[in-house]
Amino acid sequence: MMSRILASIKTRVRELRPYYLRPDVARVKLNQNENPWDTPVKIKQETLRRISDCAWSRYPNFAPRRLHERLAEFSGWTAEGLVAGNGSNELIQALLMVTVGEGKRVLINEPTFALYRQITTMLGGEVISFPLNVDLSYDATALRDAVLDVKPEVTVVCSPNNPTGCVLNDDDLRLLLESTNGLVVVDLVVLRTFSKAMAMAGLRAGYLLAAPELTSEIGKAVLPYNLNVISRTAAEVAVEMYEDELRPLVWKIIAERERLYEALGRISGLTPVRSRANFILVRSAIDPKQIFGELINRNILIRDVSGYPMLSEYFRLSVGTPEENDLLLEALREIFGAR
Amino acid sequence: MMSRILASIKTRVRELRPYYLRPDVARVKLNQNENPWDTPVKIKQETLRRISDCAWSRYPNFAPRRLHERLAEFSGWTAEGLVAGNGSNELIQALLMVTVGEGKRVLINEPTFALYRQITTMLGGEVISFPLNVDLSYDATALRDAVLDVKPEVTVVCSPNNPTGCVLNDDDLRLLLESTNGLVVVDLVVLRTFSKAMAMAGLRAGYLLAAPELTSEIGKAVLPYNLNVISRTAAEVAVEMYEDELRPLVWKIIAERERLYEALGRISGLTPVRSRANFILVRSAIDPKQIFGELINRNILIRDVSGYPMLSEYFRLSVGTPEENDLLLEALREIFGAR
Repeated sequence: MMSRILASIKTRVRELRPYYLRPDVARVKLNQNENPWDTPVKIKQETLRRISDCAWSRYPNFAPRRLHERLAEFSGWTAEGLVAGNGSNELIQALLMVTVGEGKRVLINEPTFALYRQITTMLGGEVISFPLNVDLSYDATALRDAVLDVKPEVTVVCSPNNPTGCVLNDDDLRLLLESTNGLVVVDLVVLRTFSKAMAMAGLRAGYLLAAPELTSEIGKAVLPYNLNVISRTAAEVAVEMYEDELRPLVWKIIAERERLYEALGRISGLTPVRSRANFILVRSAIDPKQIFGELINRNILIRDVSGYPMLSEYFRLSVGTPEENDLLLEALREIFGAR
Repeated sequence: MMSRILASIKTRVRELRPYYLRPDVARVKLNQNENPWDTPVKIKQETLRRISDCAWSRYPNFAPRRLHERLAEFSGWTAEGLVAGNGSNELIQALLMVTVGEGKRVLINEPTFALYRQITTMLGGEVISFPLNVDLSYDATALRDAVLDVKPEVTVVCSPNNPTGCVLNDDDLRLLLESTNGLVVVDLVVLRTFSKAMAMAGLRAGYLLAAPELTSEIGKAVLPYNLNVISRTAAEVAVEMYEDELRPLVWKIIAERERLYEALGRISGLTPVRSRANFILVRSAIDPKQIFGELINRNILIRDVSGYPMLSEYFRLSVGTPEENDLLLEALREIFGAR
């Protein structure tokens, strides 16, 4: 029997399991696709200098104009077509809030980031799930056919996809855009995060690029003062110092990703999936849950994604620092009895 | 003719005017009910000390357990029945997201904070507007009758109400709670902000107190990692140092509010409304838009609320520092030709 106090909660919400992550702790943390280096010290110092001078007791500017301008320049887009948010998650939510209601369809490829399904369901929309190929790549033709058939209000393309790392290439994306009157959300391309290349997952900043007439509608669902004054300042500093302070870290991560991919492929029992992101999905001949346990015993935390559709034999790991990746490889070689 | 690109946006969203505030600037800023003093320097310093030691590149803890525990102790409630958010606005949104869909009713008193109506409408719910008394107080009996009649899923009671400052007393609230199976949201009591007494509007922190079985449902609509690591740290420090650093400011604001109320009442042409908040609504014999203009010419920014229902003759001002309030009173005396 349902408690009286829950009577007002929508049934579809009560049936939903919350998005959840186990709060495991380990010295080598490779479970959340973070930048393995901390925010560069120059960016931290300049941020702290700027924020110690400003009032914390005043609401942030109604629109973070300076940040929007910096980001527009950075991304080669117009400030009028840009919305910054409290992490890109908030912008996914805003975008779905202005498009999805009862009976609206959202097409997502799966496996992918769980939040699209979660928010769509909460808003009363219908999730149309579109599977990746067996090799976990995008099936662009089938995707286009599905879009022509379903006519979804929103199609979400996560590219590079989380947790697979696969990409929908530009030609295939163009094909998709020509097949629909609905919105196409390209996560990581028109939805952008400060949590990876910008090394600021803790500060929660993200932004969305779209046609200005669209951002003004999406903006209606973005809460006023959503971006706090400190994160906004840090984001401005990060964009200003990107070339000197952050881009070199991105190159290091890419180099390490390629090194990891090669090394993982040489461990018998493991098959890494080609990735264009800062993480790698790995097929494992040993139960991924066991690998997770063996690694955490060695103070290494990876992501168990075996509960995702199609991924019962996989785990995911973020690209760490060279030292962290060495520790990971050593541990995996030990577990798989490799030399 | 509607642009193709807007075809996916829900009609009710396209019809909605965005929440907006004119970005006026003045030396004496009394338009947003902020704490007129900056975050106390000890709180700023301790926050900066703690955050310079921690990694900004890592996602915040999945649940901000330490902050929840501090807030539970501070408010005499249980940590399991507490959710912290990116400003209390985010918690209003989460609460409405888990309760409101097509055909659901939300009863709000009006005039009140505009966001309840905005979000309810966006989610497809129906706003049942309940007017305040002509003297801008709550009509508790009529409110109870309305709730019995309408049976709303959610009733929002903003107390003290923004922008009127009026309060629904405990007995009347009890009466209301006994009349409904729906949720009753008491803004500023079970929904709490860090933007006023805590002097941290720029940092965006708020929290919600409810029965644990309810917060676990509301939590499903709160985005993961919604509270960034710096605001979370500042909120922890503020709660720890509240008695020494912040409560004295609260007493000063209350004393100034009472002084302002008396002094405004002595200006012929102005009638202030009794307030239990950190702002005062004032009835003006001269068009409020004109007062707004006259004051901004004198470098004083107040809030023009004449567009709200019932408030065509009113403006709102936040309680400032003693010096700011003196400047305001002097300017108003000049405008109203008082001595």
